[in-house]
Amino acid sequence: MKQLPKVGSYEFLTEPFHCDFTNHLQIGHLGNHMLNAADYHSNDRGYGMNYLRTINKAWVLSRLTIELSAEAKSYDRLNIETWVENAMKFFTSRNFAITTTDGKNIGYGRSIWAMIDTQTRQPTDIFSVNDGLIKTYIEKEKPCPIEPASRVKMGSDTQLKSSNTIRYSDIDINGHLNSIKYIEHVLDLWPKEWYDHHRVKRIDIAYVIEAYAGDTINFYVESLSELEHQVRITKLSADGETLDSEQEICRTKVIFVKD
Amino acid sequence: MKQLPKVGSYEFLTEPFHCDFTNHLQIGHLGNHMLNAADYHSNDRGYGMNYLRTINKAWVLSRLTIELSAEAKSYDRLNIETWVENAMKFFTSRNFAITTTDGKNIGYGRSIWAMIDTQTRQPTDIFSVNDGLIKTYIEKEKPCPIEPASRVKMGSDTQLKSSNTIRYSDIDINGHLNSIKYIEHVLDLWPKEWYDHHRVKRIDIAYVIEAYAGDTINFYVESLSELEHQVRITKLSADGETLDSEQEICRTKVIFVKD
Repeated sequence: MKQLPKVGSYEFLTEPFHCDFTNHLQIGHLGNHMLNAADYHSNDRGYGMNYLRTINKAWVLSRLTIELSAEAKSYDRLNIETWVENAMKFFTSRNFAITTTDGKNIGYGRSIWAMIDTQTRQPTDIFSVNDGLIKTYIEKEKPCPIEPASRVKMGSDTQLKSSNTIRYSDIDINGHLNSIKYIEHVLDLWPKEWYDHHRVKRIDIAYVIEAYAGDTINFYVESLSELEHQVRITKLSADGETLDSEQEICRTKVIFVKD
Repeated sequence: MKQLPKVGSYEFLTEPFHCDFTNHLQIGHLGNHMLNAADYHSNDRGYGMNYLRTINKAWVLSRLTIELSAEAKSYDRLNIETWVENAMKFFTSRNFAITTTDGKNIGYGRSIWAMIDTQTRQPTDIFSVNDGLIKTYIEKEKPCPIEPASRVKMGSDTQLKSSNTIRYSDIDINGHLNSIKYIEHVLDLWPKEWYDHHRVKRIDIAYVIEAYAGDTINFYVESLSELEHQVRITKLSADGETLDSEQEICRTKVIFVKD
């Protein structure tokens, strides 16, 4: 496999049906494009899911941060650049830069990934894949001028805001709640009217354990200020393995800005 | 504006995160690509939303049918062909053919659209746009070998299966429940296990009136056989205009096939 540039760039069109009522790209769909860019970038370079599937390994998203200085509107063409900032035995960090096709940056992203053995579900050594090929693609110089993923520390003053059941269309190829659906469900905790005058400045998501179709998921919100909110998502498993108590599946922090 | 071919063709990649747990493209995402194709096709030919917006008119989707003989899986590249089959004063019919890029047809679609005046919300004369430009693009010869949209006639033996509140991420640029979200919500009436052994062969959707964020929507199912089901969706409006009774917003018919 030929050595490709360390930074990959992927263009997409902001589709009108992926925009919200303010005509701006929904953050969930932006997140989807970022995960696609990560997928294409790693597949093209020999350490992506297409190859990992053949050796019973898989990337698992552990953290995702998106921070935006502006919004994209329908029909805008955007470029997502992505690169591996660092790789260790059990974790790798991948960054993103989001620009309009005329070169204006509108945001950045950060993500942390683990690799698992799909048979044991245990973490596995990233460097064991293709003799540590990923190390030849580490790009430390390209700037990603946003704070690293914040450790979301929830207090005890949380409010149960919503409760859903995970359904067929919520789950992904692996049978788990789709990483992007977490974003949609969290942003749906605020009513439409909120988005008349607020937009998402930053969202941090820490994925803890997986959730499955049929699970009931609860959303607990802790408001740090008018514009800063933390959300703990827990699950109660359906049929079969009934649980005595809720399990935390995800923590997020959302920072809004007045618009 | 130069006269373009009557049939437009639009390629897209089946994205991995748009696939369900069986690794097949979710019907909602396929529907989204079809509506995008309609949007690009009509914009390119001078009677699309980009132009209509400037004269306070808009296309409104009235019926949508998708019938599939096979499914697309992740990374498949598909072409959606679309063309205007007929146009009358108040309605136009637009068809779709879905093929793999190596030419194998996997399905067809049919749709009916009205045009409204966005200020009065009343139907408006389609032929008044650009001197009836759309008439020069009518293509009656290209086959679309699926039955026309069926008139979904609901009986009285229906069961309330689910009830949701329409949230921020459900609504589109116009502030209405996104046409594609109806498909997701309807298919979510069946548990994940159903899709282990069944796939959608055909879905017919008749859009009746619009629903908005905050509305409660109810799903009533009438099962005609193990594989054929009709769904009536009603709404109870939120705050402000409280209604004495439910209003029907949509009727759908879903035909599954064993897989």
